[in-house]
Amino acid sequence: MPEREDAGSAASLHMVDLIRKMRDGGGLDEREIGFIVEGAANESIPIEQLSAWLMAAWMNGLSIAETRALAIAMRDSGEKLDSSHLGRPAVDKHSTGGVGDKTSFLVAPLAAACGVAVPMISGRALGHTGGTLDKLDSIPGFRSALSLPEFETVVKQCGVAIVSQTPTLVPADRVLYALRDRTGTVEDPGLICASILSKKLAAGLRGLVLDVKTGSGAFLRKREDAEFLAALMVATAESAGTHTVALMTDMSQPLGRTAGNWIEIAECVELLQGEAGGSNADLRELSLQLAGWMIHLGGKTETAEQGYEAAAAALANGSGLRVFKEMVRAQGGDVTVFEDLQSSHRPGARLELKAWKTGYVSQMDTMELGWAVQRLGAGRLRAGEPVDPHAGVEFHARRGVHVEAGQPFATLFASDETMLAEPSERIKRAVTISDEAPEEVPLVSLIFTRENAERYLRDAVR
Amino acid sequence: MPEREDAGSAASLHMVDLIRKMRDGGGLDEREIGFIVEGAANESIPIEQLSAWLMAAWMNGLSIAETRALAIAMRDSGEKLDSSHLGRPAVDKHSTGGVGDKTSFLVAPLAAACGVAVPMISGRALGHTGGTLDKLDSIPGFRSALSLPEFETVVKQCGVAIVSQTPTLVPADRVLYALRDRTGTVEDPGLICASILSKKLAAGLRGLVLDVKTGSGAFLRKREDAEFLAALMVATAESAGTHTVALMTDMSQPLGRTAGNWIEIAECVELLQGEAGGSNADLRELSLQLAGWMIHLGGKTETAEQGYEAAAAALANGSGLRVFKEMVRAQGGDVTVFEDLQSSHRPGARLELKAWKTGYVSQMDTMELGWAVQRLGAGRLRAGEPVDPHAGVEFHARRGVHVEAGQPFATLFASDETMLAEPSERIKRAVTISDEAPEEVPLVSLIFTRENAERYLRDAVR
Repeated sequence: MPEREDAGSAASLHMVDLIRKMRDGGGLDEREIGFIVEGAANESIPIEQLSAWLMAAWMNGLSIAETRALAIAMRDSGEKLDSSHLGRPAVDKHSTGGVGDKTSFLVAPLAAACGVAVPMISGRALGHTGGTLDKLDSIPGFRSALSLPEFETVVKQCGVAIVSQTPTLVPADRVLYALRDRTGTVEDPGLICASILSKKLAAGLRGLVLDVKTGSGAFLRKREDAEFLAALMVATAESAGTHTVALMTDMSQPLGRTAGNWIEIAECVELLQGEAGGSNADLRELSLQLAGWMIHLGGKTETAEQGYEAAAAALANGSGLRVFKEMVRAQGGDVTVFEDLQSSHRPGARLELKAWKTGYVSQMDTMELGWAVQRLGAGRLRAGEPVDPHAGVEFHARRGVHVEAGQPFATLFASDETMLAEPSERIKRAVTISDEAPEEVPLVSLIFTRENAERYLRDAVR
Repeated sequence: MPEREDAGSAASLHMVDLIRKMRDGGGLDEREIGFIVEGAANESIPIEQLSAWLMAAWMNGLSIAETRALAIAMRDSGEKLDSSHLGRPAVDKHSTGGVGDKTSFLVAPLAAACGVAVPMISGRALGHTGGTLDKLDSIPGFRSALSLPEFETVVKQCGVAIVSQTPTLVPADRVLYALRDRTGTVEDPGLICASILSKKLAAGLRGLVLDVKTGSGAFLRKREDAEFLAALMVATAESAGTHTVALMTDMSQPLGRTAGNWIEIAECVELLQGEAGGSNADLRELSLQLAGWMIHLGGKTETAEQGYEAAAAALANGSGLRVFKEMVRAQGGDVTVFEDLQSSHRPGARLELKAWKTGYVSQMDTMELGWAVQRLGAGRLRAGEPVDPHAGVEFHARRGVHVEAGQPFATLFASDETMLAEPSERIKRAVTISDEAPEEVPLVSLIFTRENAERYLRDAVR
């Protein structure tokens, strides 16, 4: 919590004046932003004033300087992880979320196996996107709700831990995020950037790799919005002292073969066990690129390419799998379920969806596919709802491949038969099969580092 | 309160969707505005959502259709006065507020003396403006907090009553106004218009006369903002079925000779007693014009000019004074204080401010003069603070007159000597005395009726 002295020095500021300033075009300085964040965290500013300020910020847009001040003030609003105790450089990865996005279970152990520490704070499924913590919860006994000292202990011991946000970490974000959700002020790049970075930077990171999704399954549907957010996050995190890159990556189809909870864990364990990566080559390749950057930004290699080679070696020699199992064990999980991945998958019902015509899989409305997965029981509509660990979809065909009518297209899993029909129809509606092959979409289309991110922001017409 | 069925039919609306719609450019229909107003009144919509909606409305501006829907939904959010029981057409006057603005004590009894009913709901002093109820409270025993049945009884008996807003009348405005004050969303013409009209229209008026101030003491400093508000209020009230006019009137100096509480009552009683109106000819003239319109809109005369003549006769023959005294008596006030107005004025201390140079009184910062009156104890900074009934200022010179250095310029009244110096300096700073006479400003510069109000709004670049 902020110190008493700060509260005293900010006492002469009045929230209604700061609301008017934001409303009339902004230009709030660090002290003013700090006053608002402190008041959100200690609940001294009433929620009606925070809400009006959020709407004014949404409508006028936060400047880059305001975004930076907000991210830093939010980072400092609660307890922080002291990464200097970890004995290794701390790095992390953040994804803006997608369907089948399971790279955390690969990049975290692979990077840790290569000598960096990965103190990863993750979230739960909501809407069309799955949640890292829900996926881990499908491992019997796994605990993600660790205290800050427990979190530090696991990272020190295994080089990696994946946990839920603690109540004492970035309390300002908890207050502001809940308000944004209820007040129609979620989708502002400055507010999104500050919310994401505050939680990441509170872990005392040396390096941060951002995976910003584009395409039909991405949170931000417009390419330019995703690029702006990526550049803004890189510039903001860099100015706060963390080496940061953002990879713009493809979400025009689900990542890898599966979307659900246990089936995503199983897919990753197969890769860690040395499976070559067939129809999920995209998942393997993206994970190695992300891990490569993490290893490089953590100072373990000269270049990201060398980081990639190190990660690939950790995959090949089984050290990534060993680290992953150590982490699961340290967090209370039963690793024997990894011994027979197939029999550990126990859905209540399944349905094989066959290709409904012959042709090329040319287009996927990936957000709709995510909703189908949610409707099968793997996700949730509202925070707090339970999820089915064994629900989900395994896709047998990818974008660009040629399918024959009647061949297996996807297998759907749910807790009972009645839940299968509607998601199955939804998948058919979301996928286009046509006579011509679609253009290929690059897996990684752009990489922002500090230099081109700052140039992008200067050029962006804001 | 709205009926249960309405609550049911609106249940499919979600407030967060309405916030987003307002944020993205508005176009809310009557049902949607009605849902918001009902939710504000019965507190089913949380204040953070109302606040975000208010900021979105402020920043995008309410359309004319939205303003109308808001005013009508707010009018209908609570109990209403059933004016059909009054036996006379109900009319009222509303002023946007100024310094020394005391026309209510003249227009209400004069119009009532000419056959209309004036059920007037008034407010208290805040900031640089005085309050009708605070002025009436300087009459010993006067009660303004009447219940709705008591209010009706006094209007039936005397033709007029001046009361404070009851808790059951327009509850939506009470909730929204308190939020606007705290969230920097006060000054939107649509929100102002709906707030003012909802309270007036809840009294079931046949006619309404609006006194919209312009000049240095007006709430809206810019002429075009005041004109827009005036036209918007006329068009909105007319479309809700009330005959309405707005007079744009001068507030480039205090209205009449006095600004305070008791001294304003005394000035009006002197006029009602037949004083010719010397240095306060402006107050007398404006009151007769406003009362004339009230009488005309109430259907008692063919034209506003005939209404003016009727009001002037009621002033001359003492019937206005008689009605005023009846009302004061019916509301518990001691009318014997009117017998010797001078000795009923008992300030704790007084100061004669002499003209500090020779020349023409060429400019007055009337808002600053209002703040001087407030600092003397006649007004309040925050709602709920007490006021001094005998504090205030009597001006001995008006804008445009030539004064000799050393002649009396104003007399200041306060509860003790220590409170006089700062307001005195403030008045000197607020008034310019120069070698050249200023241009004259018309008392009434423009009158909006339905026709030119609607034309004005069509032409306004919004």
